[in-house]
Amino acid sequence: MVEFEMSPSDSNVNDLIGARLSAFPKRHFLAAQDLDPPDIMALLDLADVFVDLNRQTTKKLDLLKGRTLVNMFFENSTRTQSSFEIAGKRLGADTVNMSMKTSSVAKGETLIDTAVTLNAMKPDLLVVRHSASGAAALLSQKVGCSVINAGDGQHQHPTQALLDMLSIRRAFGHVDGLTVAICGDVAHSRVARSNLILLSNMGANVRLVGPPTLIPGDADQWGVEVYHDMREGIAGANVVMMLRLQLERMDGAFIPSAREYYRFFGLDREKLAVAAKNVRVMHPGPMNRGIEIDSEVADDLSVSLIQDQVEMGVAARMAVLASLSARLENDR
Amino acid sequence: MVEFEMSPSDSNVNDLIGARLSAFPKRHFLAAQDLDPPDIMALLDLADVFVDLNRQTTKKLDLLKGRTLVNMFFENSTRTQSSFEIAGKRLGADTVNMSMKTSSVAKGETLIDTAVTLNAMKPDLLVVRHSASGAAALLSQKVGCSVINAGDGQHQHPTQALLDMLSIRRAFGHVDGLTVAICGDVAHSRVARSNLILLSNMGANVRLVGPPTLIPGDADQWGVEVYHDMREGIAGANVVMMLRLQLERMDGAFIPSAREYYRFFGLDREKLAVAAKNVRVMHPGPMNRGIEIDSEVADDLSVSLIQDQVEMGVAARMAVLASLSARLENDR
Amino acid sequence: MVEFEMSPSDSNVNDLIGARLSAFPKRHFLAAQDLDPPDIMALLDLADVFVDLNRQTTKKLDLLKGRTLVNMFFENSTRTQSSFEIAGKRLGADTVNMSMKTSSVAKGETLIDTAVTLNAMKPDLLVVRHSASGAAALLSQKVGCSVINAGDGQHQHPTQALLDMLSIRRAFGHVDGLTVAICGDVAHSRVARSNLILLSNMGANVRLVGPPTLIPGDADQWGVEVYHDMREGIAGANVVMMLRLQLERMDGAFIPSAREYYRFFGLDREKLAVAAKNVRVMHPGPMNRGIEIDSEVADDLSVSLIQDQVEMGVAARMAVLASLSARLENDR
Repeated sequence: MVEFEMSPSDSNVNDLIGARLSAFPKRHFLAAQDLDPPDIMALLDLADVFVDLNRQTTKKLDLLKGRTLVNMFFENSTRTQSSFEIAGKRLGADTVNMSMKTSSVAKGETLIDTAVTLNAMKPDLLVVRHSASGAAALLSQKVGCSVINAGDGQHQHPTQALLDMLSIRRAFGHVDGLTVAICGDVAHSRVARSNLILLSNMGANVRLVGPPTLIPGDADQWGVEVYHDMREGIAGANVVMMLRLQLERMDGAFIPSAREYYRFFGLDREKLAVAAKNVRVMHPGPMNRGIEIDSEVADDLSVSLIQDQVEMGVAARMAVLASLSARLENDR
Repeated sequence: MVEFEMSPSDSNVNDLIGARLSAFPKRHFLAAQDLDPPDIMALLDLADVFVDLNRQTTKKLDLLKGRTLVNMFFENSTRTQSSFEIAGKRLGADTVNMSMKTSSVAKGETLIDTAVTLNAMKPDLLVVRHSASGAAALLSQKVGCSVINAGDGQHQHPTQALLDMLSIRRAFGHVDGLTVAICGDVAHSRVARSNLILLSNMGANVRLVGPPTLIPGDADQWGVEVYHDMREGIAGANVVMMLRLQLERMDGAFIPSAREYYRFFGLDREKLAVAAKNVRVMHPGPMNRGIEIDSEVADDLSVSLIQDQVEMGVAARMAVLASLSARLENDR
Repeated sequence: MVEFEMSPSDSNVNDLIGARLSAFPKRHFLAAQDLDPPDIMALLDLADVFVDLNRQTTKKLDLLKGRTLVNMFFENSTRTQSSFEIAGKRLGADTVNMSMKTSSVAKGETLIDTAVTLNAMKPDLLVVRHSASGAAALLSQKVGCSVINAGDGQHQHPTQALLDMLSIRRAFGHVDGLTVAICGDVAHSRVARSNLILLSNMGANVRLVGPPTLIPGDADQWGVEVYHDMREGIAGANVVMMLRLQLERMDGAFIPSAREYYRFFGLDREKLAVAAKNVRVMHPGPMNRGIEIDSEVADDLSVSLIQDQVEMGVAARMAVLASLSARLENDR
C-alpha cells in the first residue's frame, strides 16, 4: 500500500472538530422547529470547520468510519443527493444510494415495509426525500437509526435552511437583526417554510413576498410581514431569498405565465436597487433564469450567494451527520 | 486525518473471524446443490459473527480491502442489490453497481461480450441477477473472478436460501428435524427451489403447499411431500415459509384472483393455528399484504422472522463474499 | 478493525509509481492534441505499473485519498463510467456518479449552471461525457477542478486513444513506424479522431478506411492516407482498428444496410489475410458482431486486442487521474 501522507494541519483539524462537535440532542433531523438556537450555533460553528476542510486538497476524515449512510430518494434530486453523498464520504461513512423509483415500492410494497426492511440492514443514518409531507417523520418512528429529512412534500427541508443560514452568517457575520425577504412561490415551498422558522428563531426579521395566489392564506398569522408587491417587500432588505417556481407541485388551478411572473416578481437589478446597500441574493436552485431571476443578478458574485449556498450545503450536511452520529455513540 | 479509535472488541472480532473463516471449496456460488453440509455450517458460523458486527456502531473490516465487487443486475432489485453492496462495503471492498438496463446490452451486445468486457476490468467478485435461468453459470465459465448468483430466472437464488437457513438456525438452534412448509407460488419461485435443496440437505423435512397450478407437475418426485390444501400442508409445521406471487413471471395462462388466492392460500391467524406451537413465519419480501399474508401475522414479531431475514441477508452475504475471497487468495 | 496485511510487494509498487509519476503539464485532459510525446510516454509508463497492480489480488492505493472524483455522464455508457469509477476507487478517491438524465438539466437548468453548482461542492476530478462536441472544454472554463473528457459528441475521446496506444505498445513494444488502419464509420467517431492525432504524434503511419459517405470530405488534408477499399486499406497493416457503426449519430441521410456493409467493410479472416503477419485487431466496443467484425476474428486471442483494450482502459485512466492529481498538488 502506498502510504497516504498526513498534512501538517491534520492534528489541527482534529482539534478544531473535537472542540466544536457536540452530540445532537435529538435522534433525528426532521424539521426546523426541532432546533434550538444553541443547537443551530453549534452546527454552524462545526460547519465552518468543514468549509475549510473541503477547500483543502485532501478532504477526508474518519469520523463516520464504519457507519452506513443510506440515501433514500423517492423524488429525484441529483443535487441534494450528491451533496449528502459527498458529505458522507468525506466523513468516512459507507454510503449507499437506493434508487427508489425502481424499487419494491413500485411492486406495491408500502413505505413502512420499505423502511422496516432497510432498517434491518442496520444503517446508521438514513437520508429521506419523499413527495409526501410528513414522510420522514413517519419513517423515523419505524427505524432504529437517525433519519434526516432531505425534503418532504411542501413541508420542510431543514438542511437547506441550515445551509442558507450558514451562507448568511458567513456573509454578514451574524443573523440576528437582518431583514430577510423570502420571495416567490412560498405556498409550494418547503424551503421557505424551513427558512422562515429557522431565521425567526435566530432573530432575523422575515418577510414573505409574492402574489396572493402563491402565499398561504394564513401567512399573516405566522408572525411575519406579508407583501404582495415586490419592491415594497424587498425595500431595505439585507437578504433577498428567491424561491423556485414549483410548477410540478401546482395542480393547474393557478399556473402563472412566465412573462407576467417575471415582470412583477422576477428579481432584476432595477428591483434590487431598493434593497439595502449590502444586500445579498440567494436561490436554492435549480434556477429558472429569466423567470424568477435575471442572469445579471444571479451571476454577479458581489451580491449573489448562490454558489456559496451549494458549497455550504456539503459543509452543513457534514455537520448534521457528524452531530447525529456523536449522539448515537453516546447512546451506546 | 482524524484517527478512528479502535474499540476494545476489535481484536476479538478479528480472532472470531479468523477461527471461522475457511476458504470456500468452489470458485463460484451458483446453486444450492453445490453446497455440502460442512460448507453450509462454516458459512452459517461465520455469518453469526457478522450479525454481531453489524449490530455495532462501527461495522467495518478490511478483509476485502483492495478487492473489487461488481453488482451486475439485469433485473431491478433495490433490496438484494443494496444487501450485497452493504455487505461488500462493510468488508472493505470497492463496490461498483452497473446499471445494466442502460448498458451496452441495450445496444445489442451479447451477455457473453458484456461479461468478458467486465472481466477485463479485473473484478474479484461478480454478483449477477438475470431473468434467464442459467445466466450466472454461463457467465462463470467466461470470467476469471468469482461469480455469485443473486437470482437467475426461475432457477436459483442460493444466498436467499442461506440467509433463510441462518434465520431458522438462530430461531430454533438447529435445522435438522424441523418441518418446513414452503407455501404458495412454488412453480415460479427460485427461492423455493434453492430452499428446498438446502433445507433437505441439512435434514429438514420439507413440504410444498399450493394450488396444483402453482406446484410443478413433477414435484412429487423431488422427495418432498406435496399438499394442495393449506391447512393440511402447514399442520404441525415448525416453519411456514410464504412465497411471493410472481405475477410478472406468469404468462397469463393462470393468474389467480387475489381474493380467491387469499381465501385458500393466504396465511392468517386462523390457518396458522394448526401449525406447531413454536411456529415461525417467513417471507422473502416484498410482501403482497392481504394476498399471500395477513398483516396481523406478518407484523407479529413473536412469530414473524421477516425482518430477521433481511438482517441475516447482509450477514450471510458477507460470509459468502469473505469465503470466496479466502479461496481466491489461496489460489495465488 | 481487522488489519489488512501488506503484501511484500507494496513498497515496490510505491517505488515504481514514485519513479514514473510526473505532474501533468495541463490542468485538464480534453483532447489528444493537448498531449506532447513526452507526456504520452510518461502516461504509458505509469499505466504499465497500474496494469500490474490491477492483476494482483489486492489492488488499492492511497494516491487519491481525500480527493473527490465525480462522473458526470449526460450520455449513458456503463462501460466507460465503470472504468473511471473502478480507476478512481483503486486509487483511493471518493467517487460519485451523478445520473444526469434525471437531474436538474431535465428541469431546464443550463449546462453551465450544472457545472458551476457541482464545482461548488469542491470535486477534484470531473469526468464528463456529453453529446455536444466541445462540452468538456466549455465546462473546464467554469470550474476549479480538473476536467477529463470522456467523450464529447463526434469530437474527442482522448482516454480511449491513450488506452488504445497502451494496448498497441504492449503488443508491439513500440508505436512509431507501425501502420495503423482505422476502419469503418470514421465520420461519426470521436474514437477515430483522437486516435488519429495521438498515433500520428507518436510516429505511427495512419490510414483511414471506409465508404466515402463515412469518411469526412476533408480527410485527405489531415496528412493521412484515405482508402475506400477495405483490402487496399489494410494491406500490410500492423494494426486494424475497427470502429463501431454509430447508427445513433446518423440522421437518416445514409444508414447502410448491415449486410451490404459487412460484405465490403466487415472484418473477416479472408480480408485480414492481406494485413501484416503480426497484425493485431482492435475495437473500442461494444461490437456489432457480423456487421463490423466477424466473431471468428474478434474472439481469436492470437490477433484480437479487444479484451486487452478494456483492461488497459482502467490502467490508462488511473494514470491520467494520478497525473492530473499530482499537478493539482503542485499548484497549492
